[in-house]
Amino acid sequence: MSEKFKRDHHCGTLTKADSGKEVALCGWVSKRRDHGGLIFIDLRDRSGICQVVIDPDAGESFKNAEAVRSEYVIQVFGKVRERDAETVNPNIATGEIEVVAHTLNVLNGAKTPPFYIQDGIDTDENLRLKYRYLDLRRPEMQANLILRHKVTKLMRDYMDNNGFLEIETPMLCKSTPEGARDYLVPSRVNPGKFYALPQSPQIFKQLLMVGGYERYFQIARCFRDEDLRADRQPEFTQLDVEMSFVEMDDVMDMMEGLIAYVFKGALGVDIQRPMQRMTWDEAMDKYGSDKPDLRFDMPLINMVDAVSGSDFKVFNNIIADGGIVKAINVKGDANIPRRELDGLVDFVAIYGAKGLAWMQIQPDGSVKSPIAKFFDEAHLNKIKETAGAEPGDLLLFVADKPATVAQALGALRIEMAKRMNLIDKDKLCFTWVTRFPMFEWNEDEKRWVAMHHPFTAPCDEDLPMLQTNPGKVYAKAYDMVLNGVELGGGSIRIHRRDVQNAIFEAIGLTDEEAQEKFGFMMQAFEYGAPPHGGLAFGLDRMIMLMAKRPSIRDVIAFPKTQNANDMMSEAPNLVDDKQLRELHIRLSLLAKDKKQ
Amino acid sequence: MSEKFKRDHHCGTLTKADSGKEVALCGWVSKRRDHGGLIFIDLRDRSGICQVVIDPDAGESFKNAEAVRSEYVIQVFGKVRERDAETVNPNIATGEIEVVAHTLNVLNGAKTPPFYIQDGIDTDENLRLKYRYLDLRRPEMQANLILRHKVTKLMRDYMDNNGFLEIETPMLCKSTPEGARDYLVPSRVNPGKFYALPQSPQIFKQLLMVGGYERYFQIARCFRDEDLRADRQPEFTQLDVEMSFVEMDDVMDMMEGLIAYVFKGALGVDIQRPMQRMTWDEAMDKYGSDKPDLRFDMPLINMVDAVSGSDFKVFNNIIADGGIVKAINVKGDANIPRRELDGLVDFVAIYGAKGLAWMQIQPDGSVKSPIAKFFDEAHLNKIKETAGAEPGDLLLFVADKPATVAQALGALRIEMAKRMNLIDKDKLCFTWVTRFPMFEWNEDEKRWVAMHHPFTAPCDEDLPMLQTNPGKVYAKAYDMVLNGVELGGGSIRIHRRDVQNAIFEAIGLTDEEAQEKFGFMMQAFEYGAPPHGGLAFGLDRMIMLMAKRPSIRDVIAFPKTQNANDMMSEAPNLVDDKQLRELHIRLSLLAKDKKQ
Repeated sequence: MSEKFKRDHHCGTLTKADSGKEVALCGWVSKRRDHGGLIFIDLRDRSGICQVVIDPDAGESFKNAEAVRSEYVIQVFGKVRERDAETVNPNIATGEIEVVAHTLNVLNGAKTPPFYIQDGIDTDENLRLKYRYLDLRRPEMQANLILRHKVTKLMRDYMDNNGFLEIETPMLCKSTPEGARDYLVPSRVNPGKFYALPQSPQIFKQLLMVGGYERYFQIARCFRDEDLRADRQPEFTQLDVEMSFVEMDDVMDMMEGLIAYVFKGALGVDIQRPMQRMTWDEAMDKYGSDKPDLRFDMPLINMVDAVSGSDFKVFNNIIADGGIVKAINVKGDANIPRRELDGLVDFVAIYGAKGLAWMQIQPDGSVKSPIAKFFDEAHLNKIKETAGAEPGDLLLFVADKPATVAQALGALRIEMAKRMNLIDKDKLCFTWVTRFPMFEWNEDEKRWVAMHHPFTAPCDEDLPMLQTNPGKVYAKAYDMVLNGVELGGGSIRIHRRDVQNAIFEAIGLTDEEAQEKFGFMMQAFEYGAPPHGGLAFGLDRMIMLMAKRPSIRDVIAFPKTQNANDMMSEAPNLVDDKQLRELHIRLSLLAKDKKQ
Repeated sequence: MSEKFKRDHHCGTLTKADSGKEVALCGWVSKRRDHGGLIFIDLRDRSGICQVVIDPDAGESFKNAEAVRSEYVIQVFGKVRERDAETVNPNIATGEIEVVAHTLNVLNGAKTPPFYIQDGIDTDENLRLKYRYLDLRRPEMQANLILRHKVTKLMRDYMDNNGFLEIETPMLCKSTPEGARDYLVPSRVNPGKFYALPQSPQIFKQLLMVGGYERYFQIARCFRDEDLRADRQPEFTQLDVEMSFVEMDDVMDMMEGLIAYVFKGALGVDIQRPMQRMTWDEAMDKYGSDKPDLRFDMPLINMVDAVSGSDFKVFNNIIADGGIVKAINVKGDANIPRRELDGLVDFVAIYGAKGLAWMQIQPDGSVKSPIAKFFDEAHLNKIKETAGAEPGDLLLFVADKPATVAQALGALRIEMAKRMNLIDKDKLCFTWVTRFPMFEWNEDEKRWVAMHHPFTAPCDEDLPMLQTNPGKVYAKAYDMVLNGVELGGGSIRIHRRDVQNAIFEAIGLTDEEAQEKFGFMMQAFEYGAPPHGGLAFGLDRMIMLMAKRPSIRDVIAFPKTQNANDMMSEAPNLVDDKQLRELHIRLSLLAKDKKQ
């Protein structure tokens, strides 16, 4: 290293073992205090903090120290010594030592920062985003980005070890009418034409399989111009994977191995393999969700048999109309206040449920419920038995169309687990959800549409039903779920033209329409496409879960707000007319006001 | 692996040692030929090619083989056996064996490809680009992308080993008036505003240094909307690096280490360290270029002393006007035909030289030259001596302004080396070029402008000349050059406000103008910026050189043409009016025709 900015140790790594050593450090002043004629400085670099002490004998360097304020950049030469027992600071890694400085150089000054550079601040996030370079100095933010680096490094090591090639695909792509809204890029050289930023490298990775690359991956930036929710960003990163000559199990095994490798390497955690697997039907039935949180049980229980034949017309009518009745058993919550129960009615209403019924199991086993009167003793016993209800339990019922029951009761299950404090934040519960329905019915267009995308392969045993009963056809699709969050998902793709044609037929596309819509992709598949499949993991969300942060903005160096603004650089911004002229476009700001 | 697409070996890896083994292979039919009642198939996968032979006893599988054509995707089960001595094929790695198939399954058919899937084809590049997925199947293209994967993996390993963190920076950035033309992305949520795709992560990486990350790198996609030359793409990839608490030598040492590690790991080549270094002045003086090709010598020789005082007015006048006279000595080219010499006059004219003089040294040491008559014996001897000219040599002179001489004679040096076949294509000659001028004079604006960017640090010893003689101030900037190609470059950045102000003053920017132009960046630097510097390598070009390919398009999976088109997907394309309306823009295609 250069003499001028020499440093031979990092602040956070000094221990008692270094006592007596002469060290050179560089870093930022985290804190300075004067005490007993001495100056104490908490010096911070990427590795951590250590205490530097300097006394007036240091002459010029002491004068430098007197000028120093928070966030000054300094260089310190000194000797490591053990602290006296009573001054040991058990809160920091280097709390047993300090560095007695004989030389202190100020490398740069600093204005007073607009917020404290320390963990756990409750500064307004917009201010943190405006001064992102300062927010990024906080140790917890640095830990997030260091974790992110580690995770991507481990991913690449694993993929490389397993014969995958990282291949870059274009960012300036073709706009397609499918999927979410594209970000567009006007072309200067091709007047009137536009590129689209990729929503994913899906087409390119399949073409790489056609190209014979067999095992591809990429940690790829993707873009979606959608209205942003709390955990969405206009640009996001995914680990994108595709393999040839594989079936579902091959992809899932390979990806389980990846996740186990990454969690072990980055967090030291052992992931149990093979991971649990459940079908989409099971997940929806038991948890009311295709991304079930398995850190707690509280399954959705089918109560149709138990309530059938009672006098409760609401349930009877719904069942007669093809609806169902399900319940969750909230163990030990029988004493829930009435006010809170009313709140739960509002809660399930958000998910479209027209009502919520409850039964509180009394200490003597009797049932307290506004609807108890409609059920005889036998029915009540059957209900308790079916729900595994014991004294002290609370049963919550939703009766509706199956999809509504799943959605409302699935959400209520999570909500009640939170209220009952059933969720162990240190637990990592992985599961695969498989066999997604191939199609869903689009009521507006009165036709079947592909649930994933129309290149997803149907399950072999369901092929005969493609014409006769598309709603019963399942797909070779799979999602990996962690603690109720979808980490990633993928599918085996169709590689044979006859199957592809049957799918197009099922969703009502003629050959010409398919050709027009998927043109060069369809053409490519005629020149020897191998069987293939893949998966993509959402990297931002995965790191967020691993770092136990509440927002993906905490694991992205320079994120955007919900308005897709960069508060720091003030992007997007106005541009010169000349720039627009060169791109053959002009602003059309009044269009929406004209209500055309 | 799944049973259905089982394979337990790869085609290109089978050797005599595998003889007798039962193997399962999957791949593409490279060639099929029928001979002596048997069918021979060259089966290709990513690892290479091996010969499969199947005879009529195989029954159903033989029938399958009869149906197979080029580029069919098949699965083969069979036994490896050594070939007879006379059928060994020394041209392929697996030429000593073949696989006798007992089972052959067709996994997918293929239409006849529009060109041969083999190395060294001379197919029109546009056709190759249209069917890129087929072109990518050719073994030499696969080798390029495999090399690219290896290189980026090695880079990341080295950077990680040296404590660098890979941190992703945004793709949706702010448009700045500096530098090349931006690609713009209209914002839907912020009507009338635009993002710009990054030309480089320069500002973000410097902010990460302010943020205390100390060692950053990223393999980053960058964008420039410039008219494309043969070796340019609208999007390109660079290895971007930044370090804190460093001086020039630290960055250069670290990056030499990287290049040595990568070349050793990917090509098995040992790079000599430390690399040669020369200043920009030396490079321009001796090679007429800031990216000298050192695979051959032929330096530019200053002839001013040798020609002074002669009767040749052309030289005398140019020297009197502050110009110079330089020559190169093309060893052994004295017998160059006159016609070719005339061509060289045209060649240097491209670079702005008004003329070219020559001297052919005869076997007896005498000088044959149209201008010989203007020089007496003593001058001619001095010229020969200065140029190290011996019988058989050709001296080529350019006299002009120093910059013109450098450009013209520098280009001629390369041209003559090519003609004389002096360039050893297997040689790797690295050099650093350092101490670039800080400023260059802009004749249009009548002011000094920064040669790199205005955050580049001037050399410490030149600081006093910032006000008095900016033209003599050199920068802490460095380029790494390989075989006459700039691999990458960077600089130490200014971290202190007083120096930054002096630079702004030198280029005639007021404090307010600087603030407006570099706003949040200037602000960030007031909160404790560490000394820092970095560098960026152009990845596409580096891989191209390593793979010895003539074009970067050969090392990019899905490149664009010189019109920035993707021939395969036909991007850019027309988009819906609705998409434009949502982005608050409309086309303005007639603007240029209206000549506004």
